Amino acid sequence: MAIKNVTVAGGGVLGSQIALQSAYCGLNVTVWGRTDASLERAKVRLERYAKTYEDVLEATKADPSVRARGLSDEGAAPEELDALKAKVAPALAGIRLTTDLAEAVADADLVIEAVIESKDQKTDFYNMLAPLLPEKTLVVTNSSYLLPSLFAEATGRPEKFMALHFANDIYRGNTAEAMNHPGTSQETYDAVVTFAESIRMIPICLHREQFGYLLNSLLLPWFGAAENLWADDVADPQTIDKVWCLALDAPRGPFRILDTVSLPTIYAVLQSNPDAHNPEHVKYRLAQKLKEKIDRGETGLLAGKGFYDYTDDAE
Amino acid sequence: MAIKNVTVAGGGVLGSQIALQSAYCGLNVTVWGRTDASLERAKVRLERYAKTYEDVLEATKADPSVRARGLSDEGAAPEELDALKAKVAPALAGIRLTTDLAEAVADADLVIEAVIESKDQKTDFYNMLAPLLPEKTLVVTNSSYLLPSLFAEATGRPEKFMALHFANDIYRGNTAEAMNHPGTSQETYDAVVTFAESIRMIPICLHREQFGYLLNSLLLPWFGAAENLWADDVADPQTIDKVWCLALDAPRGPFRILDTVSLPTIYAVLQSNPDAHNPEHVKYRLAQKLKEKIDRGETGLLAGKGFYDYTDDAE
Repeated sequence: MAIKNVTVAGGGVLGSQIALQSAYCGLNVTVWGRTDASLERAKVRLERYAKTYEDVLEATKADPSVRARGLSDEGAAPEELDALKAKVAPALAGIRLTTDLAEAVADADLVIEAVIESKDQKTDFYNMLAPLLPEKTLVVTNSSYLLPSLFAEATGRPEKFMALHFANDIYRGNTAEAMNHPGTSQETYDAVVTFAESIRMIPICLHREQFGYLLNSLLLPWFGAAENLWADDVADPQTIDKVWCLALDAPRGPFRILDTVSLPTIYAVLQSNPDAHNPEHVKYRLAQKLKEKIDRGETGLLAGKGFYDYTDDAE
Repeated sequence: MAIKNVTVAGGGVLGSQIALQSAYCGLNVTVWGRTDASLERAKVRLERYAKTYEDVLEATKADPSVRARGLSDEGAAPEELDALKAKVAPALAGIRLTTDLAEAVADADLVIEAVIESKDQKTDFYNMLAPLLPEKTLVVTNSSYLLPSLFAEATGRPEKFMALHFANDIYRGNTAEAMNHPGTSQETYDAVVTFAESIRMIPICLHREQFGYLLNSLLLPWFGAAENLWADDVADPQTIDKVWCLALDAPRGPFRILDTVSLPTIYAVLQSNPDAHNPEHVKYRLAQKLKEKIDRGETGLLAGKGFYDYTDDAE
């Protein structure tokens, strides 16, 4: 089935981005929010992202290297970029916002659940959603850390349910990890992958449930190895990045990327690791060193300083 | 102290490369081999690498993207490249080959041990070397997997001994991981790092002993995570590489690199892991899947097919 009517449940950072991207690509989009206040915040976000779309499309005319993959094709001519830019305002204006879930999903081909990352709150949402859905509707969760099988039963339609996980700034980082649970039908999987492509995402197809999907499954052990080398004073972050970049012709090593993740985020995740509380363990030394940097305000890229100093260069 | 006289012990793949690179950069180089036959093989290797140096320098004139960092600077003019090319033959001709260890090290500022990767054989070599060394001589091991502290005592000069680990094809992959053991003096460390720079290596400075140095410490958990995703059929190698490359703007993902490592090498290392022999473990499933590919002749880049098929493209 072709997906034309998309309902995004939750107008937070990712929800707003998914809604605008779907509207930009010509789909009929509804955003459901729990309260009027949450919809007001979603509106502000949508307007801000719409402005970003227009700015990036405009800037791409002068400098193709700033192109965002979700917005335009490589080598698009200035007139094509102008035509795309002209689509942004109508797309934004066409997004319907409502607190009425029954109305929001009444003719939905696809519901994208982007509510808060809590098992209980997502389960409550699905219990509320299930009786309202037309038979045709497919449902996906954008959850980062909760596997779809946790919610399959609550949706009332396990065969029409799976995960579709977007990266942040989806207009630029346009991967969408598609992950089924054991009960998802092939038809649903195929339709969801086709939908992802229709909104200019590059589908990343998983064949089974995997905590962290693919990207985090690769990143976390790599980050962990780099962090341990630093925590044990084997080498400094710049040196560790250097050997990686030189050996693999890669533009960025682990610490450059950890600066974008931000040190407080790394520290917070580390606190849930029992090893970080055992003074004999490398993760304890890592926590100490991270805390020292955070206490000095060196929290990462956004602060201008983390493992690297960003105040002297254009980055 | 400035290092002018370099003796490379062992004329194998890495030993030959280190010898030629040092001679190319103007140092006095001696290669010591255990037998005349081993020196004959070293001579063939040296000649082959010298031809490669000349070919790469010539090709760089027409296409700067083929430049090897160990051979020429970025943006070198054609006449500079010709001048460098003219240095190769005299450098090769100036390398002294001998089976007489006493003679080989009689005036050595630095001995680079590149003998076979065996603790016993390296220890025997150091026991033989120690009484022959002038007081001034520094000694480094190029070992990949054996830490320098294992041999510090056998050298008879722990303060003048450390590890300097070269990558393969050092004229191109010109990183040199410098790793001290607890007894290495700062003076030695500094002199060895300066030597590495003098032969156009980029020194990667470790502050303490680390199994696998930095690069393998990062690569192995990353490879392991990617291999597990494939072994458990979560996704195919191309998809796993794709998400990595897209998210990190990286030219190559783990499976592309594993194809250059070669599947038989991965399989051989895996056999020493007890988990690979436990049918309940993901490493067992990994071993099965690797063996299937190896049995089909899909052993990696050199075979034309591994995780990728290289027969259709220029790679």
